[in-house]
Amino acid sequence: MMTFDLLQETKDAKRIGITGHIKPDGDCIGSCLALLHYLELCYPDKECEVFLEDPGRSFKDIPLRDRINTDYPEREPFDVFIVCDTNKERTGAALKYFEKAKKTINIDHHVSNSNGTGDVNHVVPGMSSCAEVLYDLMDNTKIDAVMAELIYMAIAHDTGVFRFSNTTPDTMRKAGSLLEFGFDFPKLLDETYYVKTFLQSRFQAQIVLESKRYLNGQVIVGTADKRMMDLFGAGKDDTDGAVGELRNTEGVECAIFIYERTPGSFKASLRASSDKVNVARIAEKFGGGGHVRAAGCEYEGAMEDMIYMLLTEAAAQLGT
Amino acid sequence: MMTFDLLQETKDAKRIGITGHIKPDGDCIGSCLALLHYLELCYPDKECEVFLEDPGRSFKDIPLRDRINTDYPEREPFDVFIVCDTNKERTGAALKYFEKAKKTINIDHHVSNSNGTGDVNHVVPGMSSCAEVLYDLMDNTKIDAVMAELIYMAIAHDTGVFRFSNTTPDTMRKAGSLLEFGFDFPKLLDETYYVKTFLQSRFQAQIVLESKRYLNGQVIVGTADKRMMDLFGAGKDDTDGAVGELRNTEGVECAIFIYERTPGSFKASLRASSDKVNVARIAEKFGGGGHVRAAGCEYEGAMEDMIYMLLTEAAAQLGT
Repeated sequence: MMTFDLLQETKDAKRIGITGHIKPDGDCIGSCLALLHYLELCYPDKECEVFLEDPGRSFKDIPLRDRINTDYPEREPFDVFIVCDTNKERTGAALKYFEKAKKTINIDHHVSNSNGTGDVNHVVPGMSSCAEVLYDLMDNTKIDAVMAELIYMAIAHDTGVFRFSNTTPDTMRKAGSLLEFGFDFPKLLDETYYVKTFLQSRFQAQIVLESKRYLNGQVIVGTADKRMMDLFGAGKDDTDGAVGELRNTEGVECAIFIYERTPGSFKASLRASSDKVNVARIAEKFGGGGHVRAAGCEYEGAMEDMIYMLLTEAAAQLGT
Repeated sequence: MMTFDLLQETKDAKRIGITGHIKPDGDCIGSCLALLHYLELCYPDKECEVFLEDPGRSFKDIPLRDRINTDYPEREPFDVFIVCDTNKERTGAALKYFEKAKKTINIDHHVSNSNGTGDVNHVVPGMSSCAEVLYDLMDNTKIDAVMAELIYMAIAHDTGVFRFSNTTPDTMRKAGSLLEFGFDFPKLLDETYYVKTFLQSRFQAQIVLESKRYLNGQVIVGTADKRMMDLFGAGKDDTDGAVGELRNTEGVECAIFIYERTPGSFKASLRASSDKVNVARIAEKFGGGGHVRAAGCEYEGAMEDMIYMLLTEAAAQLGT
């Protein structure tokens, strides 16, 4: 990898803009705000701004939450515009800043963005999170409690709180060093990662309760049709995490959650528990895609038909 | 604290017995087996044995599982008998070995056992887990993959997978070093910590679905009466984790789960989300007890009366 010096690359800019991807998650939000804080600490005279879509209620109390511009106002071209945790194509309304900026930088950890889409790129596919990439770029003597909390949150979210295989020994050690700053990490994890609204809890409980197992218990399918979503008053956001709940069932190699967006139009989320099933390959058959263990796809028609076809693909991979 | 040298304290023993507490959890099981393996590596000529109650299905694939004696057979007095993660009173059927042993050692992290109950004691209340205490006692150059996996599992279980406030910067760094051994930690966590049986998932979903909130959403109560437990074919073990699920609800300061053991006989588990409620104090009013954030108690009578009285105690603390 070419040497990338964050402060060197930004030192001549007077105005710096920062963004991440649409539907920002914990890593994206934490990375953008930590980067903002770091640049402002290192360069008190520069003007820095962050642009992201509304992160939602669970992030309402995180440090620097009020520094997120969610309305993408008109701006003079930035001297440097930095995209974190994604390529330029997924920056949504912030793309206009990117396209006009004098210089663009892309910092990421996604293997699908290995080359980066900025004038200057720093992508480390082996890293757990964009925040861990940033941590390595920072002068660690400059890290303070605000930055530590944001980077810790970002790493925790992208690793499923140190549960997923992207968690490395170094990830744990870095998170440990960040905890030295003494912020209330159990509260942070509860509020941003674990807590569900009462509606979400009950809606997802209904999904689990009605879930069915197939292929000798190796595949579990949970569904929410329009009628059920309306009954609970549930929206798209309330489906978040449902497929993960299903995956936590003993014997399950592949978990599938399907919900009806509009009558006759369905979206499926797929998760694999091991290497026995490659869910990206299943999703691709439906014009969708994703990762080996987490993917998604869409379908128009009858839910029963979608279930049948997804099961057929899963069965082929499971050899049953 | 007095200096405690694990190898020095055991060097003259020919036969060493190890146990933990009744209803062994991840920390207890991992600590006992890691200690067994360590002593056998350091002292190939000694006879070492572990005695514990059956750890249940979720631990069936952990290293050295087959070394656990669950039937407490008659034994000649041990030269050294070591109790991990508890005091001697909670060792169940293993107490007979303790009482006859020539020398007893108690290694723990519970503040309630600060003085220890052995001839020699090493209790470190500030530690996340008994396994973390053991890690510090071990010559780390002797740690191998088997030991690393067991200690990692034990620490992960007692910290809620690095979620609870007992996780320190050092806990994270130690866990990181243990991951260097390259065992399949996501599988280990899934199987021993996250996965539920299909019955458990659906039973607990029903509890969440029927749960009710009180006192402006600050208290949530989930229940399972005998009829519901019979309907699902659920036993006591299937209630594990239910109160944690309830606690993960937005706005909840105190989660209460009550189930009916035998007709008219109830057991409640209580969890607090913050320092606003001390659930040990609530449980004590019912003759129960526990920790500030996790406690339990029992009641004979009508479930509605138990709920009403628990709510009254919670309301008094919440000042509503």
